[in-house]
Amino acid sequence: MEAARCVTFGQYLRPHFYLLLLIFLRNGPHTVEGVWPLPQTFTSSIERSPLSPEAFYFEYGSQSAAQQGCSVLDAAFTRYFPLIFPDYTGNGVLRFYADKPFRLVITVDRDDCESYPNEDSSERYNLSVSARQASLNAETVWGALRGLETFSQLVYQDDFGSYFVNKTEIVDFPRFQFRGILLDTSRHYLPVKTILQTLDAMAYSKFNVFHWHIVDDPSFPYQSRTYPDLSSKGAFHPMTHIYTQSDVRRVISHARLWGIRVLPEFDSPGHTASWGKGQSDLLTPCYRGSSLSGTFGPVNPVLPSTYQFMARLFKEVSSVFPDSHIHLGGDEVNFSCWSSNPDIRAFMKKMGFGVDFTKLEAFYMENIVNITSALNKTAIVWQDVFDYHELRSSLSVVEVWKGGCYLCEVRRVAKAGLRVILASPWYLDQPGPTHNWARFYTVWPLAFKGTEEQKKLVIGGEVCMWGEYVDATNLTPRLWPRASAAAERLWSDEKQTSSADKAFPRFQDLRCKLVRRGIRAEPLYVGHCKHEYQGV
Amino acid sequence: MEAARCVTFGQYLRPHFYLLLLIFLRNGPHTVEGVWPLPQTFTSSIERSPLSPEAFYFEYGSQSAAQQGCSVLDAAFTRYFPLIFPDYTGNGVLRFYADKPFRLVITVDRDDCESYPNEDSSERYNLSVSARQASLNAETVWGALRGLETFSQLVYQDDFGSYFVNKTEIVDFPRFQFRGILLDTSRHYLPVKTILQTLDAMAYSKFNVFHWHIVDDPSFPYQSRTYPDLSSKGAFHPMTHIYTQSDVRRVISHARLWGIRVLPEFDSPGHTASWGKGQSDLLTPCYRGSSLSGTFGPVNPVLPSTYQFMARLFKEVSSVFPDSHIHLGGDEVNFSCWSSNPDIRAFMKKMGFGVDFTKLEAFYMENIVNITSALNKTAIVWQDVFDYHELRSSLSVVEVWKGGCYLCEVRRVAKAGLRVILASPWYLDQPGPTHNWARFYTVWPLAFKGTEEQKKLVIGGEVCMWGEYVDATNLTPRLWPRASAAAERLWSDEKQTSSADKAFPRFQDLRCKLVRRGIRAEPLYVGHCKHEYQGV
Repeated sequence: MEAARCVTFGQYLRPHFYLLLLIFLRNGPHTVEGVWPLPQTFTSSIERSPLSPEAFYFEYGSQSAAQQGCSVLDAAFTRYFPLIFPDYTGNGVLRFYADKPFRLVITVDRDDCESYPNEDSSERYNLSVSARQASLNAETVWGALRGLETFSQLVYQDDFGSYFVNKTEIVDFPRFQFRGILLDTSRHYLPVKTILQTLDAMAYSKFNVFHWHIVDDPSFPYQSRTYPDLSSKGAFHPMTHIYTQSDVRRVISHARLWGIRVLPEFDSPGHTASWGKGQSDLLTPCYRGSSLSGTFGPVNPVLPSTYQFMARLFKEVSSVFPDSHIHLGGDEVNFSCWSSNPDIRAFMKKMGFGVDFTKLEAFYMENIVNITSALNKTAIVWQDVFDYHELRSSLSVVEVWKGGCYLCEVRRVAKAGLRVILASPWYLDQPGPTHNWARFYTVWPLAFKGTEEQKKLVIGGEVCMWGEYVDATNLTPRLWPRASAAAERLWSDEKQTSSADKAFPRFQDLRCKLVRRGIRAEPLYVGHCKHEYQGV
Repeated sequence: MEAARCVTFGQYLRPHFYLLLLIFLRNGPHTVEGVWPLPQTFTSSIERSPLSPEAFYFEYGSQSAAQQGCSVLDAAFTRYFPLIFPDYTGNGVLRFYADKPFRLVITVDRDDCESYPNEDSSERYNLSVSARQASLNAETVWGALRGLETFSQLVYQDDFGSYFVNKTEIVDFPRFQFRGILLDTSRHYLPVKTILQTLDAMAYSKFNVFHWHIVDDPSFPYQSRTYPDLSSKGAFHPMTHIYTQSDVRRVISHARLWGIRVLPEFDSPGHTASWGKGQSDLLTPCYRGSSLSGTFGPVNPVLPSTYQFMARLFKEVSSVFPDSHIHLGGDEVNFSCWSSNPDIRAFMKKMGFGVDFTKLEAFYMENIVNITSALNKTAIVWQDVFDYHELRSSLSVVEVWKGGCYLCEVRRVAKAGLRVILASPWYLDQPGPTHNWARFYTVWPLAFKGTEEQKKLVIGGEVCMWGEYVDATNLTPRLWPRASAAAERLWSDEKQTSSADKAFPRFQDLRCKLVRRGIRAEPLYVGHCKHEYQGV
């Protein structure tokens, strides 16, 4: 409203406005609430510069290893321009004066423009904003992306719609290297554009891993080149409820441009009911007494054909998803079907497993981990795999998801020398009061007894949005802004961000920024945003 | 997907398809799950007729009191055509054959086309669908609207995208006359288009009252002609977060075309903090000891100016909102400020109220009810007003909202001879498991000990969507489809709809219909709709 007014009759007056504003408002309160997640060091002054969309330039620094043509940064400049100037329509009304230019100069140490972000990518950046220029320096383009996000959050508008940025010095880097969000596209299918928009919102809170729980019991939407029947028979619908190879590429490419890794999960041996529809003899036939019951259990771990199938499937998956990691699941395996099956029991006996089915499960997972290791992928597994046996040599990264004393489990995994991802406190699909964001904010992932070395093994955390009650109709307001509470815990200095009360106004401001950017982030409490959500 | 295929290469084959379908599918399962809320009597056959958008006609029956030019029905035909044929683009591909026409013939007894629906409006209708025609008969245009909704839900598509309707006989009428949804536009502002879409979704479940809780403590978005300062000072923003007279007219007019009443609530004497910003001397100044504390409490009930203000405000409101009823609130009055104020205490003494502030509250409400009665409006109040005193002669309709034994309260109100609206079990804003729709379904509003006469005083119920944690970002998935569970309770025969398990598939089908119509109704459990929500 205000902005529109400015454009319609304030156009020629704006230079005078600037003068007036500089006179009257220079010492007034600056209206930007701050950056989310909070940078590691942040010094800002009330001295502010006006910004004009017509005289704002992204530039590569002369010393920058990346220059024009850098796909990641060129695309980022295009995306961030309207995020920095949300009112700007580009319908260039003729202007009779020249605003002084403002240059945002980006310098990166490495030309990693065409690569994918990985687990070792530096996301560190320095941002220095002064009167007519800002300098953004980073080791990698991924760090530059984080700095661009921060810069976009520093810009604010006054009541007349004019843009400003305050003099600011920032040195920033993430506390944890792994900051993920899990989406479940099996229990409900999520359209590709819903996934892409979630990636956008992730970048706004500096998340850097999209954990794609792509298949599970209810449906198998991944369209495999090698085994097309998996989706043609196992998806909710073989044409409309699948992810084609091109869809997957689109997701990976969109994520890359935001500096987000795509971590695929093909969970087995449990959670595989949908796999059985397109691949016969993969699942264990269950018995009732001495005859087949007609139902199927987990993947059959005693047949060589199972491992041949898995080797071919994971070979494909490894080539489709460029990330160095792969999530192999391994959670919640129900043993009743296995124990009903005489072939499985005979195998147990032969292997000397007795009646301990966790040994069979360990045997299975060991084989799968070996398959993916041979494909040069590092496996991530759910904590169950760590819990059920002593044979942990093949494991690398364990994701802790169960409730109760989750830090006890974090400690056990770290003590065993394995890396840990913490998900337990961030199950956002769970029903509960909407306004419980503070529950996700006040989490202390390292508050366990352990050595410095052990604590370093906690590589990060993840927000899980399981799909039982979630699809494209309600995903966004359920995820945002609550996931951003976890994002600050995973990025920022714990000591500076220990009070939810203190964070609240900045969190509300973030929520309004998300809404302004078209993300249906739900409200935290009574109040309003200057620009409310305008869709239906 | 399927439908598109039919258009692109099935066009000239369709008549043959029909034949094949008639041969192969005549005795197959009919794929329509049914109508929500369930009609009172419903007989359907597996005999089905194809429908073609190019050969489908709405017609007024020759005996109908309403004929072409009837605003309500003409508009309804325009709206329902795309709801009945959701795939139809109207890009008329040339057709080389003529489908046999299908006529939906509407006959109403009364020409109430230009009126507003009211508390006595009949919504009864009969719908008879046969081979090439459907007859819809109703006493009023409002009943015809309900029948059109039912007809639209009877039409279904096969896997090729062709439309069908089964031979069906329906006699239908609502169990309760008042079936409302409350939206709160004070705690968060809701854009007009969000309200209009909610009205659309209400009509899909045959709700007939939009209870507009338009103002409250946090903001006063209603732009009054008489007292413009109320919104210019009391709204979240005086330009962007208000409802102008034209906005209000638009809401009322949209609601009328769906046969929905708009019941405004101007809640007092509590819940009025925002009123005080634009109207000095309206609220009670609170004291700390013998001096003013600087804060304000409920409306000041001892000043004559209060009643002059209220009389003028309600005079305006009564003319702006055509409904015969008005909601006066009266809930949750905090007595601490009143009791701190020496003028109030002096008034209490003069009136002989002692220290019983409920008497003062009763005195205030009595005055307000008298003001609105003089304006020919019937007052509805929250149960507090009924609870706090014996002087109930002026009361007419009481809305029960408190938890606990709400049927005990319903019984008390009915025993006192007053009409009852039940809201307690339908507070949908409350956090809780998403999948708790059965809780809203298994409610028995008349399961209290009382005479037939007393039970008739229960005129209906209402879903309340308070605004603490709800705005345009999350309203729709929080409201739908759960509100529809209440809708069936309020419309249908209790005996036929007593099992949530039995209702579940029909409820899931409704949810997919809502999604198909662009309503972001959230999922009930794992699964999919043929057409998923496509927005972001």
